[in-house]
Amino acid sequence: MTTELQWRARAVIDGEARKWFPARVPGNVQKDYGEAMGFGDHSYGLNAEKFRVTEDYAWDYEAEIPAEALRVPEGQRLFFVTKGIDYKYEILLDGREIVRHEGMFTSVEIDLTELLGEGRDGSVGDNSTGSGPAAVHCMRVHIEPHPKRAGAADDRTQADQCAKPPVCYGWDWHPRLLVSGIWNDTYLETRGAGYIRDCEPFWELSEDCGTARVRFAVDCDRFVEIVLCDAQGQKIAGWTQQPGSEQVVEIKDPHLWWCNEQGEPYLYQWSAKSADCEKSGTFGIQSTRLEMTEGSWLSQETFPKSRCDAPAQLVLNGRKVFAKGSNWVNPEIFTGTIRDGDYEPYVLLAKRAHMNIFRCWGGSGINKEAFYDACDRLGIMLWVEFPLACNNYVGTPEYLEVLEQEARAIIRQLRRHPSVVLWCGGNELYNNWSLMTDQSLALRLLNRLTYEMDIRRPFIATSPLVGMGHGGYTFDDPNDGRDCYQVFQSAYQTAYTEFGVPGFADPEEIRKVIPPEYIFPIEKNPVWILHHGFEAWGENRWICPETLEKYAQKPMESLEETAKTAQWLQCEGYKGIFQEARRQAPHCAMAINWCYCEPWICPANNSLLSYGGKPKAAYYAVMDSLRPRLASARIPKFGWHPGEEFTAEIWLLNDSGKPVEADIRIRLIIGDETYDLGGWHAASDSANICGPTVKCVLPQSEARRMTLQLVSDKGFLDSSYTVCLYKE
Amino acid sequence: MTTELQWRARAVIDGEARKWFPARVPGNVQKDYGEAMGFGDHSYGLNAEKFRVTEDYAWDYEAEIPAEALRVPEGQRLFFVTKGIDYKYEILLDGREIVRHEGMFTSVEIDLTELLGEGRDGSVGDNSTGSGPAAVHCMRVHIEPHPKRAGAADDRTQADQCAKPPVCYGWDWHPRLLVSGIWNDTYLETRGAGYIRDCEPFWELSEDCGTARVRFAVDCDRFVEIVLCDAQGQKIAGWTQQPGSEQVVEIKDPHLWWCNEQGEPYLYQWSAKSADCEKSGTFGIQSTRLEMTEGSWLSQETFPKSRCDAPAQLVLNGRKVFAKGSNWVNPEIFTGTIRDGDYEPYVLLAKRAHMNIFRCWGGSGINKEAFYDACDRLGIMLWVEFPLACNNYVGTPEYLEVLEQEARAIIRQLRRHPSVVLWCGGNELYNNWSLMTDQSLALRLLNRLTYEMDIRRPFIATSPLVGMGHGGYTFDDPNDGRDCYQVFQSAYQTAYTEFGVPGFADPEEIRKVIPPEYIFPIEKNPVWILHHGFEAWGENRWICPETLEKYAQKPMESLEETAKTAQWLQCEGYKGIFQEARRQAPHCAMAINWCYCEPWICPANNSLLSYGGKPKAAYYAVMDSLRPRLASARIPKFGWHPGEEFTAEIWLLNDSGKPVEADIRIRLIIGDETYDLGGWHAASDSANICGPTVKCVLPQSEARRMTLQLVSDKGFLDSSYTVCLYKE
Repeated sequence: MTTELQWRARAVIDGEARKWFPARVPGNVQKDYGEAMGFGDHSYGLNAEKFRVTEDYAWDYEAEIPAEALRVPEGQRLFFVTKGIDYKYEILLDGREIVRHEGMFTSVEIDLTELLGEGRDGSVGDNSTGSGPAAVHCMRVHIEPHPKRAGAADDRTQADQCAKPPVCYGWDWHPRLLVSGIWNDTYLETRGAGYIRDCEPFWELSEDCGTARVRFAVDCDRFVEIVLCDAQGQKIAGWTQQPGSEQVVEIKDPHLWWCNEQGEPYLYQWSAKSADCEKSGTFGIQSTRLEMTEGSWLSQETFPKSRCDAPAQLVLNGRKVFAKGSNWVNPEIFTGTIRDGDYEPYVLLAKRAHMNIFRCWGGSGINKEAFYDACDRLGIMLWVEFPLACNNYVGTPEYLEVLEQEARAIIRQLRRHPSVVLWCGGNELYNNWSLMTDQSLALRLLNRLTYEMDIRRPFIATSPLVGMGHGGYTFDDPNDGRDCYQVFQSAYQTAYTEFGVPGFADPEEIRKVIPPEYIFPIEKNPVWILHHGFEAWGENRWICPETLEKYAQKPMESLEETAKTAQWLQCEGYKGIFQEARRQAPHCAMAINWCYCEPWICPANNSLLSYGGKPKAAYYAVMDSLRPRLASARIPKFGWHPGEEFTAEIWLLNDSGKPVEADIRIRLIIGDETYDLGGWHAASDSANICGPTVKCVLPQSEARRMTLQLVSDKGFLDSSYTVCLYKE
Repeated sequence: MTTELQWRARAVIDGEARKWFPARVPGNVQKDYGEAMGFGDHSYGLNAEKFRVTEDYAWDYEAEIPAEALRVPEGQRLFFVTKGIDYKYEILLDGREIVRHEGMFTSVEIDLTELLGEGRDGSVGDNSTGSGPAAVHCMRVHIEPHPKRAGAADDRTQADQCAKPPVCYGWDWHPRLLVSGIWNDTYLETRGAGYIRDCEPFWELSEDCGTARVRFAVDCDRFVEIVLCDAQGQKIAGWTQQPGSEQVVEIKDPHLWWCNEQGEPYLYQWSAKSADCEKSGTFGIQSTRLEMTEGSWLSQETFPKSRCDAPAQLVLNGRKVFAKGSNWVNPEIFTGTIRDGDYEPYVLLAKRAHMNIFRCWGGSGINKEAFYDACDRLGIMLWVEFPLACNNYVGTPEYLEVLEQEARAIIRQLRRHPSVVLWCGGNELYNNWSLMTDQSLALRLLNRLTYEMDIRRPFIATSPLVGMGHGGYTFDDPNDGRDCYQVFQSAYQTAYTEFGVPGFADPEEIRKVIPPEYIFPIEKNPVWILHHGFEAWGENRWICPETLEKYAQKPMESLEETAKTAQWLQCEGYKGIFQEARRQAPHCAMAINWCYCEPWICPANNSLLSYGGKPKAAYYAVMDSLRPRLASARIPKFGWHPGEEFTAEIWLLNDSGKPVEADIRIRLIIGDETYDLGGWHAASDSANICGPTVKCVLPQSEARRMTLQLVSDKGFLDSSYTVCLYKE
């Protein structure tokens, strides 16, 4: 039996405790404080800056233990349980410190029974000797100020000696808004002698996937009855398991867990029952490997020779799978306020967009368990990063200790999820803005822990590894001006694990966060800067006004026009990159854009979903580009001049595993004119095939854009591309 | 007290035991067998092939336990101890199996006391009940046939599921000659209750190298007196240590262990003494790191971006050290026959050649302890590879188990040596002739074990890593024909950890192994092929007759002329590469040629020392090129035509840490003519500096070679280069 507590909180400023305010648990104390102080919507105008003063506050949470929770039946015990408190804290009972802890991903369970004192008639906590009213007992959580490495600048580098996700220290799309608090489920629980502390399914799958050996590691002091059922709840096996012993069940021809569009994400069910406790759950049977992509074993002919590329081909259940997906970041600044049901709509949208993977970016840390459950159910594979990103996490003994504790908790929590297919040390750690290397002890430690605790899954130290690519993030490369069609058609990576094109949110969303007086003209001022319209990364990103005007060939005259132009470029840019990455298969094995969602309304961002999970136009362009089978045009550049010979190489993309055959007609539409560029009878058994290159000398026209259409007798293959036609 | 045993051995062929023959222990049973069977010198003619028939034999070793060894004093125990038996074996006492083991690098210690039975008056092994003569007891070691992975070809791939060094399965300079046997020290030992099983010094050095914390992990059931002395034997500290406890001694301003030419390889002394046992040894205090080389944090400007190079800069005691050295391979085919004193002359030659490092190539495995002791004493740093090379060691549970056992033994043995500065998983494992990747469990395991057991030293999974280079191995690149001057001057690696130029052994050496009728003309026949003159690697390597004739501009007319020509090219080639690698510092941080020594007389090999440690001419050319300070010419190619403008960029190389200033004159000598190309007043504080480029239009001449001389008023800087002058 669990009991929720009613919490209140207060700031402790320079050692002085301030007034109590109501606190939601799970939640983030800064959000509650902001509400109590009338900070207003943190996403509006400059309100986010109001939270800056709270960064060095300490916080107290406090809750009375309800009298009914203290009435613990004979032979049972009362526990305080938290699934996670962010970040460094002490837990006190009646003013006495009982736990001191650093790290938000480790559960803490405290047996309060002895601490409360044994009362008569089996109730704990009644430390009166007579029959008077029971004493009041009080839980307190004291949270220390946010960790900031001494000497670090006011940015993410402050987090480079802690295991807190660094994103809230400020990123190019995330405001600096440091959060902490009781962020995950926290409650009292009475537990009997047969309490099942954990029941974890483990599976081993034979090389040919023909046999699974399943066992359950049960942490319980009494025997448990374990029942294993299929996805429909039909019993497959059941047995009694004694403490310290384990039984292995062999499943012949098991149903495998498959990612989206490769099969069913099959989940077996299990329950474990002791005399006074019952737990249940699901698990999926899968095997994952990371292999070399086709062609990446080639090495240079002449000496001296270096190593070959790192493996980047995901192999699920023995089948090579092209990873199509997006980078998952925290969908909410106040991560503690996310409720279990919030995740599923996001995951469902990914499934509908034909995605099969999220790279869970290390800067955001680990999500609540419900996220992984949703991905298990919906067949979205997860590349899970530990909470390291873009910093040099120097391997001091203190840091390694907290990292090891947190990593062990993360691995233990997540390895039971079939959706997890890959562990990764963190984001861009081997790049010169992070300065970690193959020698960094933190990454060697994570390699060691994943080997020890989850040997069946691959581990990579970071992304990108050699052969993999991150970026670009803008329509035109800021260094050499090439557009994203040109950039990716000349790239030859094994995996594109971050790339993005910025686009605008819908104007109605933007108006929710930008005050009316700043809406238009869009100018470089504190409001637009705080909301990452300018100076997010370089001078003019993410709005990139010069790119918008270059391809629109006119000045922007309204927010609506600006948004529409940016959305056009974002749609066409993502189409160009995702489809090019797919055309480069099987040498390329991953196309994972930056990024999927966002933690507040970003007026101009690379994300596919606006805050709250609202699809942008680009979401549909990506959905279009990730169809298992589609006709695709490789257009060598985005901007064309009249008189130039336009060319496009026509492809049939197919990762469906099924054959397809179609007559495809290629048409170029310029203004009112339609130019027929020919046809192609395309047939693919199960792989991409390259067809003809179509050509057309471009006419002078009033139109500033032109559309290439691929139209087939199988409508589901059709594609179109709207590119720029310059005046001259 | 230890007792040596007198061993005999016999072959077991198809289950049938053959005649006993005398066996040397430590040694290799194949050598003893060959002698007994009259195979003749294995290095002569085709004799090595005679050993092929023994590959699938099993072997028995047998020795009686001498009566005096059985008289074990009261309270003591009798042990059978082996430091290593190659490779898979059982140990039997009086016909009863008592140990079954796989792996040659793990010590095995067996307490025989109970097994022999307790006799009267404290003697063991007398299982007669009366007063008759004591029974005879017999140790037997049964060695299984060489591991050969089923289905593998007759080459090194047979060793890809075992932890035996693969080199004896055949390499491009090592004949296929599989050895096994009791290869390391093996004896009986009586041990008292206070026997010191191990006493291992551990040190921690503060970041600024100002304080060392030293402790001794003692494995003994009684207290021990530990005494710590300086290198002269003067006592620094002494204390009594109880079982299970440890004391830490702080040494202020410790003498550090330095590699050759960077300081003294200082060794502290220690002794540990219990009531009935004493052990002593030395240790050195150092810290090593692997950092990024200068300039290797630069990454490409445009997107998509991959990772930066891997670190390759050795940092010893906080000081960046350019690693100058060579690849150490087994100096003897019959590795068991190497005696402790055999190593020192080799290590001394490296020291004299200004080397500071050996890369102990994984294909050869681990040496006997005396090798590491010699390197400790003489200041040669060691890059130690686990016994994996050029194979795909698939991480089956069986392989991982034996690898873990062997790796633990290797790390435990070697981590006490200050000369060890770097662990490496093995040779060229990430290349497409090996097919291992970052995901290979064997390499993840080795990363984990070195982290767990020796966190203070760097670990790399293999060589080359990204940024590092292996090859070339011939004077002209076989793929594009560029000479080694051109190849290395256009390369830009962080570390050259293998490169080589073949040269001939002295004719007198060659005549020891090539029968007279095959000496000249040198032709592709079974004798020259077996001795790797041809088809070692490609068609004509290692002799490369076409290269010899190209640069000599005439046919070879005798063995002597062939050898001299090859030696010229080897000398000039090594000068060109070693000096170029040094000129590329600090971006380049290592120049380690392939290879240092050889296991038998190789007529044509890249090695610097002929078998037995006899320096080749190239050894002196390398010694010349590794002087801490020298004048160096960067000559853009090796072959020049009359009428061409010869150029050379003049450098002053200096990694001595000391300033140098000199007037250097540059002269070109063609036949009898000397051309003065100018002078340079060079001054360097402590780094390399680049001086003028000298030029000269080349005359017609009868000379086929010309010599560039750099002559200075500081004679120790002088250098010369003899390159090719074509007829036309």
